[in-house]
Amino acid sequence: MSGRVLKLAATLMALSSNPAAEALFADSDPAATDVALAIHGGIAAERNEVSQEQARLIRAALEESLRAGRKRLAEENATSLDAVETAIRVLEDSPLFNAGKGAVFTYEGRNELDASIMEGKTKRAGAVAGVTIVKNPVSAARAVMEKSPHVLLIGRGAEVFAAKSGLEIVDPGYFWTLPRWKQIERRWRAAKSSPEKQSAVGPKPPAADGGRRQWGTVGAVSLDGKGNLAAGTSTGGTTAKMFGRVGDSPIIGAGTYADNEGCAVSCTGHGEYFIRFAVAHEINVLIKYKGLKVEDALEQVINRTLKDAGGDGGAIALDARGRYSSANNTDGMYRGWITRDGKVETRLWEN
Amino acid sequence: MSGRVLKLAATLMALSSNPAAEALFADSDPAATDVALAIHGGIAAERNEVSQEQARLIRAALEESLRAGRKRLAEENATSLDAVETAIRVLEDSPLFNAGKGAVFTYEGRNELDASIMEGKTKRAGAVAGVTIVKNPVSAARAVMEKSPHVLLIGRGAEVFAAKSGLEIVDPGYFWTLPRWKQIERRWRAAKSSPEKQSAVGPKPPAADGGRRQWGTVGAVSLDGKGNLAAGTSTGGTTAKMFGRVGDSPIIGAGTYADNEGCAVSCTGHGEYFIRFAVAHEINVLIKYKGLKVEDALEQVINRTLKDAGGDGGAIALDARGRYSSANNTDGMYRGWITRDGKVETRLWEN
Repeated sequence: MSGRVLKLAATLMALSSNPAAEALFADSDPAATDVALAIHGGIAAERNEVSQEQARLIRAALEESLRAGRKRLAEENATSLDAVETAIRVLEDSPLFNAGKGAVFTYEGRNELDASIMEGKTKRAGAVAGVTIVKNPVSAARAVMEKSPHVLLIGRGAEVFAAKSGLEIVDPGYFWTLPRWKQIERRWRAAKSSPEKQSAVGPKPPAADGGRRQWGTVGAVSLDGKGNLAAGTSTGGTTAKMFGRVGDSPIIGAGTYADNEGCAVSCTGHGEYFIRFAVAHEINVLIKYKGLKVEDALEQVINRTLKDAGGDGGAIALDARGRYSSANNTDGMYRGWITRDGKVETRLWEN
Repeated sequence: MSGRVLKLAATLMALSSNPAAEALFADSDPAATDVALAIHGGIAAERNEVSQEQARLIRAALEESLRAGRKRLAEENATSLDAVETAIRVLEDSPLFNAGKGAVFTYEGRNELDASIMEGKTKRAGAVAGVTIVKNPVSAARAVMEKSPHVLLIGRGAEVFAAKSGLEIVDPGYFWTLPRWKQIERRWRAAKSSPEKQSAVGPKPPAADGGRRQWGTVGAVSLDGKGNLAAGTSTGGTTAKMFGRVGDSPIIGAGTYADNEGCAVSCTGHGEYFIRFAVAHEINVLIKYKGLKVEDALEQVINRTLKDAGGDGGAIALDARGRYSSANNTDGMYRGWITRDGKVETRLWEN
């Protein structure tokens, strides 16, 4: 107990100099200000399923992503788009998150990846869905935005385009990881032992998987020195998703949106709900048209609209004045943010 | 001239009993009331490219779609969703429109079809993208909504699902039509004679095609007796689109949206812009949150936001009180609507 008291005392001291420290007592993230880059690593596994060592690794990966993104942002002429892409690539390359290496498997035992990116000034956007050989899907999304006349490319067309754009192509086996393979094996065993879990035309929604919420996805929002926002999201989707299933991550307006007059948003969760409620765009318009603060818009959409509908998930959002917040209606969401002067915060469960 | 005078006289007489007739003099469609079903058949070809006979056929097809949808709506327990699906299937089956049979070709000479559907009460939605063997993509979208845990299925996964759902599967050659083949041949010849028209990674946007606007798409919005809205959209995309390109039609929030508290919307146009501006959802929230009338929300998004950004296209929208309007920022849009008591109107160019 004495350790806890000491921590509380330290926190109270910190409060006098750092208003953001209030977050330690609050239900939601602080409405942090002066944030240059914020990221999420998806909905957290249940706390008792994650060892202290795993938690340490997740925090370290979030910090690495934040520092890499901020470093990029400090380069001459670098933009919030660069920071978002850089931060997401770090998370895609880490097997700890459900994006790039570490992606979950479809019901057919494949890794099908989706990603999107958008900039808030021009509202240019790019996205890819269902790619299986592109090492960093977020960079493919950016290439679609910058080098094609299109916004969304899917499947083999997206892969051919990524290869022609000079992006790194990998064998599908690159994305294989043991923990994810064990997840899909559990699903297969469950389906075999309980055939009624299979509907006539496909597997039941992943929520049926023993209550486990595997909505891991990664995303980033950033504000650069010119006052321009950007947002991006990347995912492997949901464990045992049907062949060809696409969630909200590559859908502009659902999983990702950026608008200098509103905010930059990246979402994670049960993607079908995020598409139906156009969550990213909804958060944006509540700020833009109804004058809500970032944290209030998040609260309304994530903790009321989505929660009432039964849609699990969360989102991070950042406005053009650097005001950041996050919300999730689950036990936890891996997330972090870094201010313009380099202060880093990470959170795993505490809301 | 005497014929025109007679028509004018008839119109003036009609005005006294039918306020909707004002539309003949207005810049926009009338804000028609008591509308049960409205449809569009995409952005019109230039007026001088369409013969009188072709125009007659297009009007006849629009009327057939409207009457089929309304007939379905009159059946016991039929919903606006049924009407939308029925109306769109008629347009998909007609080679006159860029959806189902009559779809345009990709740059690789294939037909890749996209569709979506949504109901306004539950905000349930379904969509397919990049399907090549499903006769009626809108019905596949509905099957995804009703028979899968997902909202969006793409490519072969969507095709397998449609087949397992019992939908009619056709040879890809079913979608081949001579006029569309001539269009893609023209694009190939143009690309061959002017290699600079090709960017490093793909064809230029279709707008480069001699200024021709080939944003044909079909869509429907409906209101049933229980006060529930539904919307749907189906398309072959844009001529010479890149392999794997997906536009706004299958994107909930971009090409299609339905919300009983706002409106049902279906869009057609340069899909990339409709995705970036989340057009269908934007129209919905302007009604829902800013209290705009249907026609004013359409006007603001289509004729201001999109037009200013350079995004060609249009949309139809219907609210839960049966108030319908449409807008487009091009020369024309094929469209029509039918009231609850069966009055049919069609328009091709006159805005």
